[in-house]
Amino acid sequence: MPKSGKIPKATITRLSIYDRQLELLEFDGYRVVSSEKLAWLCQVNSAQVRKDLGYFGEFGIRGVGYDVIDLQAQIKEILAINRNWNLGMVGIGKLGSALIQHHNFSARGFKCVAAFDNAPDKIGKRHPSGLMIRNIDELREAVRELDVEIGVITTPASAAQRVADLLLEAHVNAILNFSPTRIRVPECCLVEHIDFTVMLDVLVYKFHHEARGMLADRAMSRIAIEEQAH
Amino acid sequence: MPKSGKIPKATITRLSIYDRQLELLEFDGYRVVSSEKLAWLCQVNSAQVRKDLGYFGEFGIRGVGYDVIDLQAQIKEILAINRNWNLGMVGIGKLGSALIQHHNFSARGFKCVAAFDNAPDKIGKRHPSGLMIRNIDELREAVRELDVEIGVITTPASAAQRVADLLLEAHVNAILNFSPTRIRVPECCLVEHIDFTVMLDVLVYKFHHEARGMLADRAMSRIAIEEQAH
Repeated sequence: MPKSGKIPKATITRLSIYDRQLELLEFDGYRVVSSEKLAWLCQVNSAQVRKDLGYFGEFGIRGVGYDVIDLQAQIKEILAINRNWNLGMVGIGKLGSALIQHHNFSARGFKCVAAFDNAPDKIGKRHPSGLMIRNIDELREAVRELDVEIGVITTPASAAQRVADLLLEAHVNAILNFSPTRIRVPECCLVEHIDFTVMLDVLVYKFHHEARGMLADRAMSRIAIEEQAH
Repeated sequence: MPKSGKIPKATITRLSIYDRQLELLEFDGYRVVSSEKLAWLCQVNSAQVRKDLGYFGEFGIRGVGYDVIDLQAQIKEILAINRNWNLGMVGIGKLGSALIQHHNFSARGFKCVAAFDNAPDKIGKRHPSGLMIRNIDELREAVRELDVEIGVITTPASAAQRVADLLLEAHVNAILNFSPTRIRVPECCLVEHIDFTVMLDVLVYKFHHEARGMLADRAMSRIAIEEQAH
């Protein structure tokens, strides 16, 4: 395995996507897949697939393709998802509640083992998933007791930094942040931000500036073709 | 405005983040902010802030900083979020239901105007948000009637491609996809994928390969310091 610092984040993201498509291929009965087919399924080009995998060694057989099961195992090992990870969800509002039960987390080996909130009417109640909602003040003990490895923040923005600080104090050094703010953590802690509205902004920017241009280009070329035809 | 094709997606993402921090600064009563402070709030370096804004022109006054209100207005115009956008949510399970009511969408000018599902027990019912849940078969008419501009897919993976095809037929050319699969669309359509578990995979990879290294480095340097001290 190479020095991980040199691997682009986009490569890691794509490895995760390749893994999902390989699972689907296995489910559909495929044993071998070409880089072209895997690339098409993942909406990238095949040179990209080969380059991404090339960071980690030699996979597949030239002219034949990749073994669907072997490559999955290799990618899962690279990504360190060849075991389960324990999540602690902080903020059991509508979004947090929906995420706890999101079958995709558990299907991918991310198991929500603890739920926290600070609202007195929620604390001590059992969530529909079966988890007891705990007082955020008990985070430190619960993290140790239940071996929480990753904190998921689904609180409003105003509470996110405080929650991040509590997670750090409890030695949870990996955070998935759904709250619409940037949280500040020391270098030893890793954060991934999932801010839906930032992604909507990016989508709208592209739609406004690029797609309309493409649609206009298309309309123009159609006019040009029609003019030639006359 | 430059040719939008040349602007990195990461720049667009950061502009959206700058905009949020500028809103918070305005709320806190600031009228001017330095690129250093804005950078610190957004967890980037100040050269990055200046470079990102530099794609779009001259903002701010050297040695003084940016006008908090002006810069917001400029960024909102660049991102085309200086008006509201209408969303149509497809798949009203737990996640879709939570997202419809997610105050951040409406706070940022993204208004959910239509909700669709294919489950007979949901169709025709009123969602807690007040929206009537419509039959997915009525998508085309509803898109026209309600002027849906962006489709949000929150169905299981197995239904996502069919929903994307229906959105395209209804001339919805911008899609935010929360389903854990890649959907295939023609070039005139734009898709942003939000796959939580892909982001967890990336987090776990970094945690496993980088953070542990950092923690180990730190432990090693502490040992070295302690050894020197003896």
